[in-house]
Amino acid sequence: MKKVNISEKFELFDDHWSPRIIGQLNGQEVKIAKVKGEFVWHDHANEDEMFLIIKGTLKLEFRDHTVTLNEGEMLVIPKGVEHKPIADEEVHLLLFEPASTQHTGEVVHELTKNKKDLI
Amino acid sequence: MKKVNISEKFELFDDHWSPRIIGQLNGQEVKIAKVKGEFVWHDHANEDEMFLIIKGTLKLEFRDHTVTLNEGEMLVIPKGVEHKPIADEEVHLLLFEPASTQHTGEVVHELTKNKKDLI
Repeated sequence: MKKVNISEKFELFDDHWSPRIIGQLNGQEVKIAKVKGEFVWHDHANEDEMFLIIKGTLKLEFRDHTVTLNEGEMLVIPKGVEHKPIADEEVHLLLFEPASTQHTGEVVHELTKNKKDLI
Repeated sequence: MKKVNISEKFELFDDHWSPRIIGQLNGQEVKIAKVKGEFVWHDHANEDEMFLIIKGTLKLEFRDHTVTLNEGEMLVIPKGVEHKPIADEEVHLLLFEPASTQHTGEVVHELTKNKKDLI
């Protein structure tokens, strides 16, 4: 049982769209990621996903609307809902989701990465 | 699907030790609470529990040591581990835990409250 300082964890990596796991509980994972630019359209067939913005502004495009999230704001995306994250400038975000979640969902893309170690 | 501004949610209540639900996903709940003073010793037999400090400093006493969490720090308390939160000054915290979790665990206490509505 070790406390985690979220800011310090963000200092451990610089690559974009590559979530790191910082906590595990009840079959769920807490992840952080730095993102910049456009991600791919995808959904998660079996997992709801939560985004919490630590720094910056993230646009989440859905097929019929866009949600803009600023620092301190969060959104739960229900399973099966297609979404595409876009960050005009670098965004630091925290994710809560089941350990089974692949970050590009069913889509296999050059951006697909699956780090499974706790940092 | 509606975004949640965490600071705005904290403005909706002032009572201590009374968690409010601000998000639900995958059978888990995201809760926020304002706490001040000493809570009761308790554990959660079946649920790991995560604390993330939004404002202030929280001491988490365990039977053999104490962990002090500052703003931006988090801790996962495994199921079955007895703990007692103490806040010398008011603390704003975010909790991530299964929807089944009672905040005083098996202990029924005058502090036991179980709000089940999303605010």
